[in-house]
This record gives sequence, C-alpha cells and structure tokens, in this order.
Amino acid sequence: MTPEPPDRVLLGHGSGGRLTDRLVREVFLGRLSNPALDALSDAAHLPDPAGPLAFTTDAFVVSPLFFPGGDIGSLCVNGTVNDLAVAGAVPLHLSAAFILEEGFPLADLRRIADSMAAAAAAAGVEVVCGDTKVVERGHGDGVFVTTAGIGRLRAEPPPGARSIRPGDAVIVSGPLGDHGAVILAARMGLDAAGSLRSDGAPVAGLVDALYAAGVRPRFLRDPTRGGLATVLAEAGREAALTAEVREDRIPVRDSVRAVCSLLGVDPLYLACEGRIVAIVPPEQEGDAVRALRGVPGGEGAAAVGTVVPLRVAPVSLVTLYGGRRAYDTLAADPLPRIC
Amino acid sequence: MTPEPPDRVLLGHGSGGRLTDRLVREVFLGRLSNPALDALSDAAHLPDPAGPLAFTTDAFVVSPLFFPGGDIGSLCVNGTVNDLAVAGAVPLHLSAAFILEEGFPLADLRRIADSMAAAAAAAGVEVVCGDTKVVERGHGDGVFVTTAGIGRLRAEPPPGARSIRPGDAVIVSGPLGDHGAVILAARMGLDAAGSLRSDGAPVAGLVDALYAAGVRPRFLRDPTRGGLATVLAEAGREAALTAEVREDRIPVRDSVRAVCSLLGVDPLYLACEGRIVAIVPPEQEGDAVRALRGVPGGEGAAAVGTVVPLRVAPVSLVTLYGGRRAYDTLAADPLPRIC
Repeated sequence: MTPEPPDRVLLGHGSGGRLTDRLVREVFLGRLSNPALDALSDAAHLPDPAGPLAFTTDAFVVSPLFFPGGDIGSLCVNGTVNDLAVAGAVPLHLSAAFILEEGFPLADLRRIADSMAAAAAAAGVEVVCGDTKVVERGHGDGVFVTTAGIGRLRAEPPPGARSIRPGDAVIVSGPLGDHGAVILAARMGLDAAGSLRSDGAPVAGLVDALYAAGVRPRFLRDPTRGGLATVLAEAGREAALTAEVREDRIPVRDSVRAVCSLLGVDPLYLACEGRIVAIVPPEQEGDAVRALRGVPGGEGAAAVGTVVPLRVAPVSLVTLYGGRRAYDTLAADPLPRIC
Repeated sequence: MTPEPPDRVLLGHGSGGRLTDRLVREVFLGRLSNPALDALSDAAHLPDPAGPLAFTTDAFVVSPLFFPGGDIGSLCVNGTVNDLAVAGAVPLHLSAAFILEEGFPLADLRRIADSMAAAAAAAGVEVVCGDTKVVERGHGDGVFVTTAGIGRLRAEPPPGARSIRPGDAVIVSGPLGDHGAVILAARMGLDAAGSLRSDGAPVAGLVDALYAAGVRPRFLRDPTRGGLATVLAEAGREAALTAEVREDRIPVRDSVRAVCSLLGVDPLYLACEGRIVAIVPPEQEGDAVRALRGVPGGEGAAAVGTVVPLRVAPVSLVTLYGGRRAYDTLAADPLPRIC
C-alpha cells in the first residue's frame, strides 16, 4: 500500500509535477473555479475590456495569517480590488501567486482558498490565473500571497493630489484603524473579550456609490499601511496644501482607542483594509457623505475636515481641546506585516 | 549627525512610510522608469489594448539568486513574458511585487533591478506597477519576486493539446536543460570551469517568427519546471496520443550531459527558461524549423519527433541504440526552487 501523504505542504508541491497538479486541483480549482482559471493554461485568455485599463499588484505577508474579521485570503483579494477601485477602475480579474513554506498545513491552505473565493464573489471579480511555489522549512513563513488585478478604468478617474484645492472637503467612509488594531492586539495577545474585528472589505461599492451620486473625487485612496495620516500627508505634500482635520469628527471605535492608549499608538496612523478617503469639491461634501452612508460598509461615513493653504505640516489635527497637532509621513510604520 | 542607514533592507523599508518611498525611488524608479510606473499611484493606468487579453502570474523563488547567465531579476521578467508568448499573446505590461528579507543587501537588490530593466527592454515590455514588503530575518530567503503580465492576444492563439493529431511534428527551439543544469551545478559547487550558462531569454521573438512564417502551432509551451518530458507528457495525456521523440535529434549540450551523468538526472526533465516546444501540422515542420533558426535564440532549433497513436506512455523516446524509453509526468521534479 502506498502511504497517504501527510496533510502538509511538501517541497514537491512546488515542483510543477503531479503533486503540484493535485494541489492546484484539490485546493484551488474547486473553490475558485471559472472558465479562464479552469483551462490551466500558461496565461488566462480574457475578453476585450473595451477601453483603458488599470493594473496593480500587492504582496501579502500579514502575520498572523488568520485574525478576527479576516485572513490572508480575504485580504489578498480585497487589497487588490481596493487598489483598483480607488484608482478609478472597476475591478475585473485577479491573479494569485502563492509562496508556501514546506510543512504548512493543507487544511489552513484550504481555509485561505475558501476565504479568497468568498471575497472574490463579494467583490464581483474572478481569480483567473495563479502559481504555486514551495520553499524549504525555515525559508518562508507559512504562506505569502501576491495578487495582481486588472480593472476597466472609469471615464473620469480621480485626477489626483495635484488637483486638490483649498476649501475641498476630506471624507472618510467609516471608523478608522480597525484592521491595524486587530493585528496589533492579536500579536500582543490582547483583546481577550473579542471586541475588535478587521474592517477588511471591498470598497468598490463605496466608489460606485460616489460616482452614481454625481460626486467626482479629486483624490481617492484606501488608507492601508500608515493610515489616514499618511494618506493625507502624501496628498498634502504633493498638493503643497494642508489637510486640516478635526478630532471630534474622525470616527474611531472605543475598542480601537483602547488598544491605542494601551500601546501608545496613534489611531490616525493605523491601517484600514475596507475604508476610503476622498477629497471632494466643497459643494459635493453633502452628496458624498449621503452616498457613502447609503451602501453597506459606508454607514459610518463622515466629513472630517477641509483643505487649507499650507501650514507647518501637510496634516493638521484640531484636537478635542482646541489644540493643534501636526502630522507627516513616518519614516517607518510602527507595525510591520500588517498586510 | 544622523548616522547613515546601513546598506541593507530594514523592516521599515516595507512599512509604506518614507523608508519605503526612498527604497522605491532609489532602487526601482530610476532603473525601470516609465510614465505609468513613475506616477506611483494605487494602480497603473494603461491604454486600451484594443482586443482580447492574456493575463498570467508567476512567483520566483530561485536559489541561488545569481547564477551564470542570469539572476532572479532576468528570470522574473522572462518567465512571465514567456508565459504570455506561448499562450499566443504579445507581452505588453508587467507588475512586480517583492518580498524582501530583513538584512538583504541593497547592492544585490540594485543589481536585480538592473537585470529586470535590461530584460524588460530586451523583451519590449514595461514594468508598470509594483509593491515592496519586508519580512523579519529568518522568515524569508533574501528576495522573492512575483510578476504578473498582460498581453494582447493574437487572432489565432495555439488551440492547445486537444487539437494535436497523429503525424504532427514536435519542434524545440534549441538545446535543452541549460537552466536546470546551471542551477543544479551552482548548488552542488560543480562546474569550476564555467562551461554552463542559463538559457534564460524572452521567447516572444521566436513565437513571432513562427507566426510571421505562416506557422500555426497547435500547441506551444516553454519547457520550464519538469522540462521537455513533462510538457510533452501533459500534452500527450490531454490529447490521448504519444509524442515519439528521437534521442539522436534532441539537442543537449555536452556540458549539460556531463552534469546529468554525474548526478543521475535526465536532461529531458531539466528546466529551460528561454526555449519553446511547438507541435505543428506535418506540412509546417520545415517552415517552423527554418523560421526559428533565423532569429536570435533559435539557432539550435530542431524537429525532434512525431505524434503517434497512444502507446504505453504519453512520451516515447527512441534511444541512440534503437531502444525505447517511456516518459510520463513526475510526482515531483527532483530539483526544487529552479525558478
């Protein structure tokens, strides 16, 4: 009798031979099935997108791999979907390449593939091509996934930071820092009560809602690594303007604030994985907030500030007590491997 | 005085803050510059491809990173360019995502970026978007790169293995196994004389030459992981036919044969990174070989066999001595991390 192979990743799973083929069919094809992927050819054949494209990629090395509200599977789909959405594109097709460490449990890989399938379905995209490589134990860290994505560019994508003008409104689509806080808490063994949950979600529906309401953002981003402060600091620097935001308007959950006070981290630098930051002309502020609040994931949208002529820093926070705090990009985010 | 940062990758280089920005600008932008990449937005904006697309991805974990005839930088460009080319597409745009290990020398990363730039220029493609993540020392292995690629699909891409018919000719574009042999020798400390060199190269020009000569391959692949034997075994299985190849016609360099005899490896299973295998209708055999021999990288092209009704295995080798040897896909390639 041939012994059953152990239910763990073997070096041979990355060899391109029969073990690789079995892994791909058993773990990925059943879960992510679509005609382009199922063909298992060297490249997926896709229909004419009939217009200009957007193309993006992200590597995901999040640790831990599983956390309240998501895992590396949902993250690697949403992250790339969201980069396309905030670039002003409608996400269409994803690729996914796995770097597995020898010994990684196949049960965990199946769970990740399930999560990718659910996230792709929720975002209305298909994973159409992929790759699997394996490195020796001690030369990787469980699993890394790199996704790339193709989208159809809208007729009027956000022109970018240089189009921002004084008086423009700064809008966020919901509470900030949930994802960063949950990863931080998971690594530190905090949050025994389980009150934290990643905000990981596709933002394409939020962007659709803005456009459908006639809003034309001058600048649109998802505040991932480095959070709201970094996104606004980069925009402010490029525009040579300051984003003046008000602490009393910035939505942050109490549970996130608690983690931040305990660890001395500022929630404005914490990553989100399902939020957008939009800078819109002043007359579109009301429509933008209403549009976001009307769709799932945007219920907590708020106008948090205004663009003003350049002050000492590209971001100025008016605190609860009327003081001011300057923010700029950090040399390095205090929290590695957040995504 | 602020001390100079060490010339090595730091965890902060992956944080999305100023260190990441400096790394991207100093290492990648200067070398890979083009308007889409230079915009450094969430997604590259690309013109309408005006037709159906091909989309592919590969993760590269080759070890060692540098080897005679190439490195992970040339490999990650050519590998994706070649997957597009053999799928019947003209390669256009690439993405590149890096997973760096803390402590990796920046000088090596610059050398890899130089190599990517040269390979992209040679293949006529642009790297239009990217990402950089860093993992703690001991949780990665120097650098892993994942590229994805978009190409414009030809009007008549190869229909695939199921279109193969008995009598079709099997053609290779040059000597087999150079890449596999050089990696094997580098790991084993063989080849002090330096006679081996990877065949790593873009194959898009070879495919162009076939089409320009009126050849319409029924099946087209680059024999990477698993080599010629694996490509033909997969095709044979899918077509329920056998590829009968003749040892006296299969080009293998003496230096590659020497490594193979020393280590007990069959050159037919060794990876190439700059070759193609084409199965063409019998009447196109002569044109195909002539077309390949007329372009750089195809000088050693040869017709190596014929498709016949199914025998005991999907590949049958007629040996130099008139015997027969059956080949099928392997459970696992004997050589991990070949690409």
